[in-house]
Amino acid sequence: MSVGTVHGVGLGPGDPDLMSVRADRLLRNARHVAFFRKAGRSGQARRIVEGLLRDDVIEFPMEYPVTTEIPVTDPGYNAALSGFYADCTDHLRGLVQGGEDVVVLCEGDPFFFGSFMHLYTRLKDDAPVQVVPAITGMSGAWTATGQPITWGDDILTVLMGTLPRDMLADRMSHSDAVVVMKIGRHFDKVKSALKDAGKFDDAWLVEYASMPNQTVQKLADAGDRITPYFAIIVVHGQGRRP
Amino acid sequence: MSVGTVHGVGLGPGDPDLMSVRADRLLRNARHVAFFRKAGRSGQARRIVEGLLRDDVIEFPMEYPVTTEIPVTDPGYNAALSGFYADCTDHLRGLVQGGEDVVVLCEGDPFFFGSFMHLYTRLKDDAPVQVVPAITGMSGAWTATGQPITWGDDILTVLMGTLPRDMLADRMSHSDAVVVMKIGRHFDKVKSALKDAGKFDDAWLVEYASMPNQTVQKLADAGDRITPYFAIIVVHGQGRRP
Ligand SMILES: C[S@@+](CC[C@H](N)C(=O)[O-])C[C@H]1O[C@@H](n2cnc3c(N)ncnc32)[C@H](O)[C@@H]1O
Ligand SMILES: C[S@@+](CC[C@H](N)C(=O)[O-])C[C@H]1O[C@@H](n2cnc3c(N)ncnc32)[C@H](O)[C@@H]1O
Repeated sequence: MSVGTVHGVGLGPGDPDLMSVRADRLLRNARHVAFFRKAGRSGQARRIVEGLLRDDVIEFPMEYPVTTEIPVTDPGYNAALSGFYADCTDHLRGLVQGGEDVVVLCEGDPFFFGSFMHLYTRLKDDAPVQVVPAITGMSGAWTATGQPITWGDDILTVLMGTLPRDMLADRMSHSDAVVVMKIGRHFDKVKSALKDAGKFDDAWLVEYASMPNQTVQKLADAGDRITPYFAIIVVHGQGRRP
Repeated sequence: MSVGTVHGVGLGPGDPDLMSVRADRLLRNARHVAFFRKAGRSGQARRIVEGLLRDDVIEFPMEYPVTTEIPVTDPGYNAALSGFYADCTDHLRGLVQGGEDVVVLCEGDPFFFGSFMHLYTRLKDDAPVQVVPAITGMSGAWTATGQPITWGDDILTVLMGTLPRDMLADRMSHSDAVVVMKIGRHFDKVKSALKDAGKFDDAWLVEYASMPNQTVQKLADAGDRITPYFAIIVVHGQGRRP
């Protein structure tokens, strides 16, 4: 019996029409589909493929044991997640050793801040793993603003809202175009870093890029609202253009 | 008669299988297809869609008047390109005013250092323009290396090889993950900047990502060869991972 393959399949920013032709084909043919979700939630990756899967598909939801309850700096956080990824990996390894292919659904591009990477590093030495790149959430976000993100020799810096304030401000001020992801509880800090870098007035907030509930607004107009998980801040470069 | 729409359609890094479902559908139905190319060349965007277009498609190749013959700092460069983009725009505007839809083929993501942006800014105020995001060349490149590009709160900086050496070195040293595009004649400068930033030994060179002639190698093993237009240097982040 030949061994199966684990496919880490990027689904793009959210609109099913934006997944790749290869992702679409792999999905529609998949007998085993695995995906991450928070306990009690349907999971964004699973939502994107609603209606596309085979009738006899076997689904394997991987439910995060911890999310925001434990601080990421707590050793318990790493231990819990690490055990969880090991369990998921064991299950996937069992399937492929039994000759089955498995599609793991990934939001955006799997190798760009994706959870799949944690399975990938644990699996790649003892199972065939194929990764299908995808449109990132940030591409979805800058497209939604209706303005190109970078021109000529603009520098683009991608920053996580979880970084320290001064580091954010420093990197923002040394870049032309800026993307900030994982904003959540760090919204005020990110806004204040953008102000320090002189980029606040040019920043846009995009929520749910390419999804039915997409919103696009100047960051200055967003007020103090709580941003959802799917939120990205974009500052466009203004480089050379003939 | 209703006015048509210009679709700026990203095709992804090169493999036709990596274009989006929407791009694929728009292409297959398009009666008018426009694309940039160098004089006497077939053009990469056009090559990607080979075999996918309608039999009765009307093609509009837009041939660059200048490429590397005039330095980008020469005012003649901007003037020549600017007139060229205006001519292309006039043609597209004429088509949509005559009620026709036009698909403009774009390599990678149209709003990420794409040539389409120069048509977009000239068209968007007097014609309906829709942009379809796509997988970037850099996503294709890091996927080809078989290693995730960013983890945890890694900083990713995207740099053009055309930037001054010291600026490259400085930005590289203040980033975890690095992508360098538009390398060409700047290969030696980029390598020396990576050495200054202590990142040369961790750098990968990916040529023709996702195309049939793709190559992936450690930059240190690449020697002094001339890099092709489709070449990207990738340094992976090493951030937090449970
Ligand atoms: C763990 S990262 C995953 C990134 C994903 N692999 C990608 O390629 O975009 C999660 C962050 O991505 C951003 N994100 C991803 N998709 C998004 C979308 N459609 N709209 C807004 N933000 C998005 C948000 O900032 C979110 O906090
Ligand atoms: C004018 S930029 C266009 C970028 C494109 N819009 C994108 O989203 O990737 C051209 C540069 O993109 C990079 N590039 C694009 N696609 C590539 C590929 N498949 N393989 C290697 N490099 C690529 C090269 O560095 C090239 O010099």
